[in-house]
Amino acid sequence: MSSPAAFDWLKSNEKASIDRWMDWLRIASISTDPAYKSDCRKAAEWCRDQFAELGFDAKLVETGEVKAGVGSGHPIVLATIDPAPGNKSPHVLFYGHYDVQPVDPLDLWESKPFEPVIKPAVAGGPGERVVARGAVDDKGQVMMFLEACRAWKELTGHPTGGAKFTVMVEGEEECGSGNLEPFVRAHKDLLSQCDVCLISDTGMLGRGKPAITYGVRGLAYTEITLHAANQDLHSGLWGGRCPNPITELTRVLAQLHDKKRRVTIPGFYDDVIPLSKKERANWKALKFNSIAALKKIGIGKDGDIGEAGFSAMEREWGRPTAEINGIWGGYTGKGAKTVIPAHASAKVSFRLVADQDPKKITKLFFKWLKANTPDGCRWELNDHHGGFGVTVPIDSPHLEFASRAIKKATGKRPALIKSGGSIPVAGMLKDVLKLDTIFMGFGLDDDRVHSPNEKFELDCFRWGARSHAAFIGELTQ
Amino acid sequence: MSSPAAFDWLKSNEKASIDRWMDWLRIASISTDPAYKSDCRKAAEWCRDQFAELGFDAKLVETGEVKAGVGSGHPIVLATIDPAPGNKSPHVLFYGHYDVQPVDPLDLWESKPFEPVIKPAVAGGPGERVVARGAVDDKGQVMMFLEACRAWKELTGHPTGGAKFTVMVEGEEECGSGNLEPFVRAHKDLLSQCDVCLISDTGMLGRGKPAITYGVRGLAYTEITLHAANQDLHSGLWGGRCPNPITELTRVLAQLHDKKRRVTIPGFYDDVIPLSKKERANWKALKFNSIAALKKIGIGKDGDIGEAGFSAMEREWGRPTAEINGIWGGYTGKGAKTVIPAHASAKVSFRLVADQDPKKITKLFFKWLKANTPDGCRWELNDHHGGFGVTVPIDSPHLEFASRAIKKATGKRPALIKSGGSIPVAGMLKDVLKLDTIFMGFGLDDDRVHSPNEKFELDCFRWGARSHAAFIGELTQ
Repeated sequence: MSSPAAFDWLKSNEKASIDRWMDWLRIASISTDPAYKSDCRKAAEWCRDQFAELGFDAKLVETGEVKAGVGSGHPIVLATIDPAPGNKSPHVLFYGHYDVQPVDPLDLWESKPFEPVIKPAVAGGPGERVVARGAVDDKGQVMMFLEACRAWKELTGHPTGGAKFTVMVEGEEECGSGNLEPFVRAHKDLLSQCDVCLISDTGMLGRGKPAITYGVRGLAYTEITLHAANQDLHSGLWGGRCPNPITELTRVLAQLHDKKRRVTIPGFYDDVIPLSKKERANWKALKFNSIAALKKIGIGKDGDIGEAGFSAMEREWGRPTAEINGIWGGYTGKGAKTVIPAHASAKVSFRLVADQDPKKITKLFFKWLKANTPDGCRWELNDHHGGFGVTVPIDSPHLEFASRAIKKATGKRPALIKSGGSIPVAGMLKDVLKLDTIFMGFGLDDDRVHSPNEKFELDCFRWGARSHAAFIGELTQ
Repeated sequence: MSSPAAFDWLKSNEKASIDRWMDWLRIASISTDPAYKSDCRKAAEWCRDQFAELGFDAKLVETGEVKAGVGSGHPIVLATIDPAPGNKSPHVLFYGHYDVQPVDPLDLWESKPFEPVIKPAVAGGPGERVVARGAVDDKGQVMMFLEACRAWKELTGHPTGGAKFTVMVEGEEECGSGNLEPFVRAHKDLLSQCDVCLISDTGMLGRGKPAITYGVRGLAYTEITLHAANQDLHSGLWGGRCPNPITELTRVLAQLHDKKRRVTIPGFYDDVIPLSKKERANWKALKFNSIAALKKIGIGKDGDIGEAGFSAMEREWGRPTAEINGIWGGYTGKGAKTVIPAHASAKVSFRLVADQDPKKITKLFFKWLKANTPDGCRWELNDHHGGFGVTVPIDSPHLEFASRAIKKATGKRPALIKSGGSIPVAGMLKDVLKLDTIFMGFGLDDDRVHSPNEKFELDCFRWGARSHAAFIGELTQ
């Protein structure tokens, strides 16, 4: 069977594909919050049943609570399909995740996060989008693969056109994937038979511009609390004569970047590989309009800020960053309360580029905090999780399969890009199984990933399903 | 009748006094939170009934919602008692407040905030304390006056020994007293007949060290929000190429103090009256041990920080400060969320010394913020409320009445001190009615005012009730 037949099937059966996708989106699988534990299991079971229906040997593998793994213990979907007799295609490991980010701030959602709706793709424009938490990250992208398998199954009786595939869909990607590495090590015999990993959790270069991502950033995520007094204090009686942990925390965090917006932690840049002239030239040729991108999120051109000496694209794809993802302390309710609190906290994360070790970066950060402990205060420091960044050789034959598949599915040769996001699993698979990863994703920059009103456009979903079907076609030719 | 007879009555009837006090503490009169509006009214009615029972002409005066007055609209208790025939004593205006601060963080309370309990004063030590929200601020201190009136009523038939008194107990002190000035202006004919105001909402110099406060600081309270993108963003895709409002907010707030911990807002110190050599010498003679005070709240001597060149006492009593009372932004739940939020906020307040105008300070602060607006961001600025500081002439005859009363009640000549807290009503009464205020309070530094486990020690309450009874005695002699 040829890819065009699969394209036809996908087109004719699209409504049912979208209905299945929306069924999955209705399950509130927020992994980081223990209150949603049973929803996570439901989402895993739903996914397992889909692969089983397509003929995979599919099961849930239980995981346990892991140290420092908030909200951990969600099962992993493991599905395998044997090759058709005589098939010699590469053995692909497909990875995705069924868990999603928390939904707050809830009041900014225009529709309920777990009641998916179909809306116009852009106001007054053509096309449609599905709006829901997880629409694109990552249920929608896993669905592209599932529906591609369904097309091949319907047309050839084998969901991957005869090729051997192993599928691993985890439920802890949004809370650190604490159980994944132990799982991979425990299943090393099976998984190390794979030739390449396929991950569909990234984006395109832009609307109508398909891309293959050959590198993602790593991540180190921390939570820090600065303690001062052993009780909340009256700011009239104590203001001006003891440390205020909020004030002190802002004074420390304000030093995290220098005037050139470089991270000031000693040693932070030691393992950063400088961008090559060629890479910078390639990226420049993509003509990314950073000002237009900012405009879409309501920021003027004066907001085009970041590490001095690098373009926006270089800052996102090729340079490490430090971000404060959350901060809290003192009175945050309505009205006024004249309090000096006992402590103040922040969530601080770092995006890393290849060769920066998240454990080392966290250690350097904590060392820097301790060296900058404000007088009269003490730190409580927590390492939430991290993962290595990864860069795939652009001359890999598997990358070429994907590239040809996307050309067939979309009519356009994909751009080779990097992503500023983190997919720590890729770094781990390289480390444990020596596997390269192909990132074939169809998200858009404005998909509101991790934000209210997350969406995935149907045009993107279509391209994704077709490209995954064509990828199977290329593999099995 | 003489003060000693009132002292005897107070001693014999103490249990009933404490029971009444605890009844009042059971009413959750949190004024800043609209959810407690009916509780505020209940607390007002309770107070009105007490004064009515003692023979005052007591009523509730309704107030309306005021602009920017979060949780406003709580009634004011107004009670008057005519003089006995021929009495020529000074006419005193007694001021107190029945509202209390919010109770969060609730999990740090050892007993429920509105279920008052009696506990040992200090672990293993002598004496007892009442623990509840409002125990000392200000229900407990108003009760000292109420019980003193009850003693005089029982013994002479007139609750203030024959003197004319006017009582004003408001319910918005903890949320800005937005209705008080309009009330005072509306009742100017009545209130301007008073000779002096008596406020019982301050503290002693220390355990066993009675004091009269002759100055309090002013307050300007603001809430500021820094906006960047029009949506929450993924820190992988956007980190390093757009403003993070949390990071930017910390960078701005960290500039609020310079290295000498002076407030950097231009013009902030323009109206500050320098401390006189004599005042500094008087305070030094009080031998306040700032290190011991810090130790009590769990802070080491390296936490003895504040504006360079001033002692802790000078910083609290005689110098203005800037404090961040609350900060929030981004993800503050459990676990990790890699978000760059759309905005971040802080509550920032200033304690002011006499002649610093809160409105002017807020204006200067906002001007400074605007001048320091981070690239790509915009401010949303709210002025919550403020009040002038005040200093009373220490040669006032009314201060001498209070001083003699305390000496009779406690056996000790009170120290003349200032307070770092704010009682904006005093500044307003000086401005509108030209009235001086005597601050006769019996709180302790470690009473956990505005904090979990607020308490008032029975020894302090006793001294307070006796001192108020003796004050009436001095007035009417």
